[in-house]
Amino acid sequence: MSKFDESRERLKNKLLEMSSLVEAAIECSIRAVIHKDQGAAAEVLKNEARINSIEIEIDGLAIDLLALHQPMASSLRFIVAALKINTNLERMGDLSVNIAHSAQLLIGTPAAEWIVDIPLIGGLVQQMVRKSLDAFVSGDADLALSVLASDDAVDALRTTCYHQLVAFMEKDPRNIRQGLNLLTVTRTLERVADHSTNIAEDVLFYVKGVDVRHNPPAGHNHRPEDGNS
Amino acid sequence: MSKFDESRERLKNKLLEMSSLVEAAIECSIRAVIHKDQGAAAEVLKNEARINSIEIEIDGLAIDLLALHQPMASSLRFIVAALKINTNLERMGDLSVNIAHSAQLLIGTPAAEWIVDIPLIGGLVQQMVRKSLDAFVSGDADLALSVLASDDAVDALRTTCYHQLVAFMEKDPRNIRQGLNLLTVTRTLERVADHSTNIAEDVLFYVKGVDVRHNPPAGHNHRPEDGNS
Repeated sequence: MSKFDESRERLKNKLLEMSSLVEAAIECSIRAVIHKDQGAAAEVLKNEARINSIEIEIDGLAIDLLALHQPMASSLRFIVAALKINTNLERMGDLSVNIAHSAQLLIGTPAAEWIVDIPLIGGLVQQMVRKSLDAFVSGDADLALSVLASDDAVDALRTTCYHQLVAFMEKDPRNIRQGLNLLTVTRTLERVADHSTNIAEDVLFYVKGVDVRHNPPAGHNHRPEDGNS
Repeated sequence: MSKFDESRERLKNKLLEMSSLVEAAIECSIRAVIHKDQGAAAEVLKNEARINSIEIEIDGLAIDLLALHQPMASSLRFIVAALKINTNLERMGDLSVNIAHSAQLLIGTPAAEWIVDIPLIGGLVQQMVRKSLDAFVSGDADLALSVLASDDAVDALRTTCYHQLVAFMEKDPRNIRQGLNLLTVTRTLERVADHSTNIAEDVLFYVKGVDVRHNPPAGHNHRPEDGNS
């Protein structure tokens, strides 16, 4: 194995470590909400520092790879994708902390989780997270595309939840604080789904060399302009 | 001017164009909320496509610079920072669209803006945006540091708003929808401030070569680990 391949493997392994941690944090934060599980919430808060420190390590590995090996084409795209995926993973870690905080606020309130189907959205979002990370590991463009399709389902579900929660709050003002916390949970889960979508787009860019953000036609638009120097 | 310097100048100019557009979008979206200005909201929605397409152009310029010139040290850090700042600017563009949507929902509702001081938070956030972008343009580390300090003020203000809006909604259930829209605006402004903080951190990384994310001590932690290959 060349020095470059070794360093690239190390970067990939660190990203895998990071993604396992983030996936666990999201799973744990959803569990904290659904089962009012104080221990699960505490675990999410405890693991945040580790995620933050790996983020910095990964950026360092990627920058060293760029500086020492001057990679081209697919290898260069892999490293740029790694930098972007890293940022998304760290934000997802932050969002799991937000969900854990909401879970703590919901502990001790009367059970009203039936108002919105958190297990359903949570399950969908976790599936997106897992698929986007699997797509990265295996370089599977089709799997990445399937993540983009799921995003609409999560958005639709979140809109339904919004209306259900507004009705719940309007019925009795004593429901407002609890309703707001549940709203924060569904909104935050939607943002986790958005980051999975970003990761899927980064995977497509790395695997296919095509930028699918903001719809395909613009994706061929990224060459330097001639008249602009 | 060498070929590399020319390309770097072109990247910098594109980022400046992007940041002017994003700054204008945020300003415009805040105006739409404060003055219930339908035209301002429409302008934000109209400009989103331009921001999205420049994001893709900027990534392309940065990747070409990496591929063709294999930059080192400060030049390499500049390009990595450009990639990250670009992502943050695009998200800020998205957030201005969210604010414009909330503004549209608020048009036609009875004036309740006095409940929370949107002009105050909006002004603070716009100041952070401007400072973080000025810090990037001038490579001014002190200015970047001043952005980090402002983030706490915005967070505190947002917490105050949250409690004011909960009280407003609890007083009369008919206030709930309007209260939720105002809550979305303040929450979104806080997220814009977070992205300015990210940009300031990217500037510090580029100017000083130090990673200040998640507090300084971890910032020296980004070398590849020896036993991990």
